[in-house]
Amino acid sequence: MKRITLAQRPTGLPDDDTWAVEEVEVPTAGDGEFVVKVDHISLDPAMRGWLNDVRSYLPPVKIGEVMRAGVTGTVTESRHPGFAVGDAVTGTLGVTEYALTDGTGVRRIDTSVAGPATWLGALGMPGLTAYHGLYEVGEMKPGETVVISAAAGAVGSVAGQLAKAKGCTVIGIAGGPEKCAWLEEIGFDAAIDYKNEDVLTRLRELAPQGLDVYFDNVGGEILDAALANLRRSARIVICGAISTYNDEQLAPGPSRYMALLVFRARMQGFLVFDYPDKDEAALTDMAGLIRSGRLVARETVVEGGVEDFGRTLLGLFEGRNTGKLVLKIA
Amino acid sequence: MKRITLAQRPTGLPDDDTWAVEEVEVPTAGDGEFVVKVDHISLDPAMRGWLNDVRSYLPPVKIGEVMRAGVTGTVTESRHPGFAVGDAVTGTLGVTEYALTDGTGVRRIDTSVAGPATWLGALGMPGLTAYHGLYEVGEMKPGETVVISAAAGAVGSVAGQLAKAKGCTVIGIAGGPEKCAWLEEIGFDAAIDYKNEDVLTRLRELAPQGLDVYFDNVGGEILDAALANLRRSARIVICGAISTYNDEQLAPGPSRYMALLVFRARMQGFLVFDYPDKDEAALTDMAGLIRSGRLVARETVVEGGVEDFGRTLLGLFEGRNTGKLVLKIA
Repeated sequence: MKRITLAQRPTGLPDDDTWAVEEVEVPTAGDGEFVVKVDHISLDPAMRGWLNDVRSYLPPVKIGEVMRAGVTGTVTESRHPGFAVGDAVTGTLGVTEYALTDGTGVRRIDTSVAGPATWLGALGMPGLTAYHGLYEVGEMKPGETVVISAAAGAVGSVAGQLAKAKGCTVIGIAGGPEKCAWLEEIGFDAAIDYKNEDVLTRLRELAPQGLDVYFDNVGGEILDAALANLRRSARIVICGAISTYNDEQLAPGPSRYMALLVFRARMQGFLVFDYPDKDEAALTDMAGLIRSGRLVARETVVEGGVEDFGRTLLGLFEGRNTGKLVLKIA
Repeated sequence: MKRITLAQRPTGLPDDDTWAVEEVEVPTAGDGEFVVKVDHISLDPAMRGWLNDVRSYLPPVKIGEVMRAGVTGTVTESRHPGFAVGDAVTGTLGVTEYALTDGTGVRRIDTSVAGPATWLGALGMPGLTAYHGLYEVGEMKPGETVVISAAAGAVGSVAGQLAKAKGCTVIGIAGGPEKCAWLEEIGFDAAIDYKNEDVLTRLRELAPQGLDVYFDNVGGEILDAALANLRRSARIVICGAISTYNDEQLAPGPSRYMALLVFRARMQGFLVFDYPDKDEAALTDMAGLIRSGRLVARETVVEGGVEDFGRTLLGLFEGRNTGKLVLKIA
């Protein structure tokens, strides 16, 4: 079997030198363990941060260690009382063809509700991130104006549809006319193409009263454009800053942050792991929205082997995906 | 009588061309009005913002208009049922020797509790700003670590003492050894001299577990130093950004703002006007602390005429004041 380890820490964008392909024996389960044959690997913007040797919310991936990644797969051998051969599961098992685990953080998934790729997307970490970010941090209320950046991405596309289902007016910001057209197709009230439009001006036109919630996945100039268009008591949900993740130096921060004072607004960060007690209810809610057609779960599925992980990851930073980006292992 | 009007909007620091001295007749009270002879004029960092022709929380001072300022004074003529000749009052009556008012926003003050300058400081807007900022926005709790910038200023010196009275560990940041020594004298657990010490490193040494509340009056690099030293669930109270008020271009924002995500922290702006229902209780609380000696109200009093307003204001941006800066009209 093959697996991908971190060969060296990248400066700027990861490249071929970042990764090593290891060939090793398929593991066998010890007492209390089981083996998972991986079928889908999640690609997430946060992965870039895990490669930096800095103190953060998770320890950095070590040199020589299997790259951390959420996956789905099927149990092929089990000496664990909670998991049987044939079970479909998801967990953070890494970029590998087979994973050995004691079950920590691994959950069974019901593939009759949605396919494995969706369990890495709308019904996985990205969906929960959108859900907790909007409800717990953004405190969105019906009738409010919600703006979402990277709106055609895994988190953003779910967030926009959740806000819409809650009765909000939703404006998405995405790169390119195709993504923007798709956002309007899935129910966003408006979409701004940041590659071809001035975001600050367009926000002012589309939301002249200002925005109540800004769900930020990108940072940089778009965060500043949102700050320039707040309504009183606005909430900015800091979910990510993909525009800066590959910067070699610390990027300048949001120069308009004093809008927080003028508009008595707040900017708050969070992590999806912070609300474990609310995950089950959130997933039930979102599965219901998917069944009723009010939440469209879309994935960009790249087929290949684990050795394609590095190149596939770059697609995220180039904005090549619409919806959740996953690598399907042939 | 003399009064100061805005002659032209400054670029960068205000200078002599910014202001005009007008000589006019002392006003007389119409029905429902009264006249106040001004004795003390407040000088506030926020004044710089009021000079810019931009949409903000208050309309900009207009060209030719009397400069907005909080003052104390004595009623010299009254045709208002609520105010009598001889009453000591405070209100936003402008940089003028005499003011005509219908009483909007004017309150009587008890000069047996504290002198007029204190009613512009610890028992005025700066005190209420410190109080509401820490309680309503910072949500400080006993035992937490609270860090305050511009800690020897009008707001900061009150904020630090309030946090100390609440049972917090308090670190102040100020410019120069004299101010730092004074902070320790009035009960701060530690003081950092940003002119002679590296704030980021010193915060790490003084608060190795990170800080729970950061009360920011200055912005700039010191805000970034605080962001680099957060504890989980920290609250950053955005009260001001004096380091940037005279910048001719929008200063870079806090480059370490993504610490909000890593530490699940929030950064929130507010204005002192937002909590009118809580002002009375706050003032009662602070007056009690002053009486019991737990809150030292200090003012830097400059004596002169209204024509000294412009030069006195510059002292704020040069950090010449300790505690509240007021101009006492001879």
